[in-house]
Amino acid sequence: MKVGIIGATGYTGEELLKCLARHGGVEVAFVSSEQRAGVSLKEVFPHLPAYADLTLCTTEESTRIDVDLVFTCLPAGESVKWGKRFLDKGSKLIDLGSDFRFRSADMYTKWYHIEHPHPELLPDAVYGLTEWHRDDIAHATIVGNPGCYPTSVLLPLLPFVAAGLVADAPIIIDAKSGVSGAGKKATDVTHYVSVNENVTPYKTGRTHRHVGEMEKELRAVGGKQTIVFTPHLVPLTRGMLSTIYVQLAEEKSRDDLFEVLANTYSAEPFVHILTDRMPDMRVAQNSNLCFISLQKVAEANCLILCSAIDNLGKGASTQAVQNMNVMLGFAETAGLL
Amino acid sequence: MKVGIIGATGYTGEELLKCLARHGGVEVAFVSSEQRAGVSLKEVFPHLPAYADLTLCTTEESTRIDVDLVFTCLPAGESVKWGKRFLDKGSKLIDLGSDFRFRSADMYTKWYHIEHPHPELLPDAVYGLTEWHRDDIAHATIVGNPGCYPTSVLLPLLPFVAAGLVADAPIIIDAKSGVSGAGKKATDVTHYVSVNENVTPYKTGRTHRHVGEMEKELRAVGGKQTIVFTPHLVPLTRGMLSTIYVQLAEEKSRDDLFEVLANTYSAEPFVHILTDRMPDMRVAQNSNLCFISLQKVAEANCLILCSAIDNLGKGASTQAVQNMNVMLGFAETAGLL
Amino acid sequence: MKVGIIGATGYTGEELLKCLARHGGVEVAFVSSEQRAGVSLKEVFPHLPAYADLTLCTTEESTRIDVDLVFTCLPAGESVKWGKRFLDKGSKLIDLGSDFRFRSADMYTKWYHIEHPHPELLPDAVYGLTEWHRDDIAHATIVGNPGCYPTSVLLPLLPFVAAGLVADAPIIIDAKSGVSGAGKKATDVTHYVSVNENVTPYKTGRTHRHVGEMEKELRAVGGKQTIVFTPHLVPLTRGMLSTIYVQLAEEKSRDDLFEVLANTYSAEPFVHILTDRMPDMRVAQNSNLCFISLQKVAEANCLILCSAIDNLGKGASTQAVQNMNVMLGFAETAGLL
Amino acid sequence: MKVGIIGATGYTGEELLKCLARHGGVEVAFVSSEQRAGVSLKEVFPHLPAYADLTLCTTEESTRIDVDLVFTCLPAGESVKWGKRFLDKGSKLIDLGSDFRFRSADMYTKWYHIEHPHPELLPDAVYGLTEWHRDDIAHATIVGNPGCYPTSVLLPLLPFVAAGLVADAPIIIDAKSGVSGAGKKATDVTHYVSVNENVTPYKTGRTHRHVGEMEKELRAVGGKQTIVFTPHLVPLTRGMLSTIYVQLAEEKSRDDLFEVLANTYSAEPFVHILTDRMPDMRVAQNSNLCFISLQKVAEANCLILCSAIDNLGKGASTQAVQNMNVMLGFAETAGLL
Repeated sequence: MKVGIIGATGYTGEELLKCLARHGGVEVAFVSSEQRAGVSLKEVFPHLPAYADLTLCTTEESTRIDVDLVFTCLPAGESVKWGKRFLDKGSKLIDLGSDFRFRSADMYTKWYHIEHPHPELLPDAVYGLTEWHRDDIAHATIVGNPGCYPTSVLLPLLPFVAAGLVADAPIIIDAKSGVSGAGKKATDVTHYVSVNENVTPYKTGRTHRHVGEMEKELRAVGGKQTIVFTPHLVPLTRGMLSTIYVQLAEEKSRDDLFEVLANTYSAEPFVHILTDRMPDMRVAQNSNLCFISLQKVAEANCLILCSAIDNLGKGASTQAVQNMNVMLGFAETAGLL
Repeated sequence: MKVGIIGATGYTGEELLKCLARHGGVEVAFVSSEQRAGVSLKEVFPHLPAYADLTLCTTEESTRIDVDLVFTCLPAGESVKWGKRFLDKGSKLIDLGSDFRFRSADMYTKWYHIEHPHPELLPDAVYGLTEWHRDDIAHATIVGNPGCYPTSVLLPLLPFVAAGLVADAPIIIDAKSGVSGAGKKATDVTHYVSVNENVTPYKTGRTHRHVGEMEKELRAVGGKQTIVFTPHLVPLTRGMLSTIYVQLAEEKSRDDLFEVLANTYSAEPFVHILTDRMPDMRVAQNSNLCFISLQKVAEANCLILCSAIDNLGKGASTQAVQNMNVMLGFAETAGLL
Repeated sequence: MKVGIIGATGYTGEELLKCLARHGGVEVAFVSSEQRAGVSLKEVFPHLPAYADLTLCTTEESTRIDVDLVFTCLPAGESVKWGKRFLDKGSKLIDLGSDFRFRSADMYTKWYHIEHPHPELLPDAVYGLTEWHRDDIAHATIVGNPGCYPTSVLLPLLPFVAAGLVADAPIIIDAKSGVSGAGKKATDVTHYVSVNENVTPYKTGRTHRHVGEMEKELRAVGGKQTIVFTPHLVPLTRGMLSTIYVQLAEEKSRDDLFEVLANTYSAEPFVHILTDRMPDMRVAQNSNLCFISLQKVAEANCLILCSAIDNLGKGASTQAVQNMNVMLGFAETAGLL
Repeated sequence: MKVGIIGATGYTGEELLKCLARHGGVEVAFVSSEQRAGVSLKEVFPHLPAYADLTLCTTEESTRIDVDLVFTCLPAGESVKWGKRFLDKGSKLIDLGSDFRFRSADMYTKWYHIEHPHPELLPDAVYGLTEWHRDDIAHATIVGNPGCYPTSVLLPLLPFVAAGLVADAPIIIDAKSGVSGAGKKATDVTHYVSVNENVTPYKTGRTHRHVGEMEKELRAVGGKQTIVFTPHLVPLTRGMLSTIYVQLAEEKSRDDLFEVLANTYSAEPFVHILTDRMPDMRVAQNSNLCFISLQKVAEANCLILCSAIDNLGKGASTQAVQNMNVMLGFAETAGLL
């Protein structure tokens, strides 16, 4: 099987390459980059000797190469433009950008403030939160890979909302992300001295566009709650921890609450429940794993959920490979353990 | 004026020394340490040449030296034992430990799980959140310096609770602290490799003993809310950021909400309101400053408060010096700007 | 093939487990730990689900399990004691400790200040710097895995010393290591606040025991130089960068100097030469790779060599797996790409 | 006394402001910035409330304000252009840039690759390494504040070179600097993800322009040695550690070597000799201190010198204030303890 990567020199492209080098079942047929076309991948990523023979091409050039599946790692509005070229040729598509996370073009516009270039493709797009949409993903030609924050929030939260256990009060989400989530571009925000010895809240309340993605999935399982979301930039390269506070709709014991998680995830290879402690960010680093735990605060009838993922792993590239495995018929864990 | 420091080799002792070196109005008459008695302070803190002539004494030896005020920097139950010796001699006392943060011995026992050694002293102890208890501090002989988390939470929260603007729903506090807050002892938790590239929630819900201290102060201004509190250890040395989520009791405009803060703090030298952005942790580092901002989330009738302090500054040692200034009649900002 | 790991809960044990999980050709038959015997590996390393069924045993218990090869990850003097038990049963041994890095018991005692418990085993021990002793390793029953600093220094330095290009003046080595090299034990040195925002030279000059190991290998290729060595602890978890300054014995062009490296390493899968820039520490992280570059300073007839490895990778555990591959007849790169 | 700061929004400008706020004897009459002219300093530096009333002006505007002394914090070639305007008005000048570090215009051009705009001013410029040029500084109208690396290297090295104790072999300098030394501009080099968990050698050998500045001062005390210099970027915000390797010209005891330092610096308030250990970077952070220690390696007749400074402190802004104190007749330690 052949795959290609559009926008290969960013952090998510690099992680895809690392992961696919261990996969064994796919060949990377091309890697594209507008800014560095013509440069050997060996020069860009000397630490990935498996690809020493690949040279970056322009995305236009890449469209002349046939692949079974293409990964797009581009900003909103860009992924779909190039992706369509490959879809028209019969390739499957996994977008690590944000162009296929909504089926509604209006919702896309509401949160991304641009018109969707090809709204006619949206009805075919499946949301790639693998554990919740596995069957649809298996038959999909287009998968919108979830955002990092939504992945870290939905995996712990959906089981409880789907079970009707969450009251209609606002759901408070306080999340912490490593700097790789802010992308490779050098800005005042990503300057070492800005980040180091600092924690910075940003796009607080309902201003981060991932809020729409989260609420869309909540609605899909019957939840009506409003999300209040505060992401924080923390001084580390990769990792994501979400602390989620919900009001319980009814009295539930701690054991009952853990059983909700176990019922959903006990057979899942990548979602692990910790019963003795809250996860730290570390346990999920450099992996496709998601760790979840919970605490019930009886005095406040409150449930605290906490999850850890790697923002470039389960939050991006390794979840994309997990989806690829499902779409192309590989073992779901291929390249991921 | 003469002061002494009991437990001078820990992080809070070191910060006191740094701050007092710039004060000009007080002489440090002794520094004590059980483990390092007999060692020159020059050896322990080569970066503090102002104290090159001081030698650490045992705390027993320190009791033979007369001072106007003593700072105790010891664990729960220890501060009061040595502090009483100085109180009996007529010294004033500021405890940077936790022995004088409650006036109720029962509350102390509830949260610290030990009997208070001298409950008869508690009625005289004033809670040293300077901006809220300045007049009492001015006349106090005993001041219980607040914990770092309570300082960072109460400064932004009290104005709204006192004004009756907060609904009775649980108040969610998600806090992030640098590692110096965990103390100087080498443990698996403070090992560099445990902390680096990691974020760790700990003592979540209502298990951290600072919850009692926060609720005590809420009750004092009429608040009945239950606190749900999740502290997180973040990979940096010093700093504290608290993100606080409250339900509003009534509809209030953004301007009204900022006016509540302005009414409380506009004349305060150390509490600064940011109106254009949430504070990051950095702005308060190495200072006695507290920065506060807020955001109203209309869809959820929710108010997000965010505060930044230095956990060793306004969260410990510089607030202790601020209290000392009030108690001994110095300008409140002496040594602190 | 079956392998076992003695001292499995330290950093090098954890890296071995990560690497072997991707290997495919060996089964981990046991993991031992004196302090955590009886505990499930799932609890110690939740991020390594491949070993969820393994439970830590005591080392005494481990000796009752037959393996083809055992890895010992214990302090000086301890590895050999337990290792001998396995050698007597016919297992092969790779010691990630320091008990088999010298063939001379006197040298061992000189640098480690203890008597070697089994000097009769030393003549059979092969020094596991794979690229330089591959043939001997293939036939060895005992391999002394090199120290991290010697690996990072000898790979760039040996080609030039062996070629007689280095003058007899002292060789200056200035090395920087991540904190995992200091081990998992919580000490004042490994406390987060001690390391963070700091760089610390330690065991400078000729006081670090790795100096003996380096000079031994220099002597083996005919070098007579004295090493002056300054290791520095830098604030990061894993990685090692060595900057090496030698006087050239004769005038050589830049191209000639690079050719020396190319002649030695062009066919090596894990040693990479950078010709356009000095390596940074990052390129080698989480890998078995060693990156080398050089600069000639004509005005001083000086050659600067710079190398980067991962102290837990090529500096410890992945080099051990590389040696295992050679000893057991696997492809040398199995599990390592 | 009135001072002004040209280029006030960079790291060195910020440090000047912090330091001058504690000085007491000078008023900051203006702060200039081309890019942020018109913005309140309160907005740029909310953590410096002492300057809440100052507004940034353009540098052109600043020339209309009379000051006793002006600090220029601009790139090579820019400082002198604006500085001359103030010199012509009778102000004194301390340049934290690099325009007055050489008295020879040719040397300036050799290392900075531009023509000096006003070579006629160079004969009047005094090199601001306070401890070595105090008397000249006291009478100077122009002081070229030293670079950070030269300060950290020359303070430990000059006493030995001046005493004729250093052989003519090349002097090896291996230095480590925090990221603030790379300036405030967002680049690929200063991106958090590039720096974090990394150490990067750069401008190695004799390519860094500070080499010329160091050799100039060596020559001034009679040294003929060639410098080989490797700076490394380390993952921290501020601090500088230089490890220096010299061949001794003659046999000297450890005590003799320490006496050389003591003879030079025992009366200096800011240079401290550690006799029991090498300095780490930490001890000098946020101060004007320089810590020095040494080790003799008898087997190699080698002397290792190690120094620690804060690159923004003694390496830039606080040394500039120290020079200001000397030039304007304040106590040399004013604002600096």
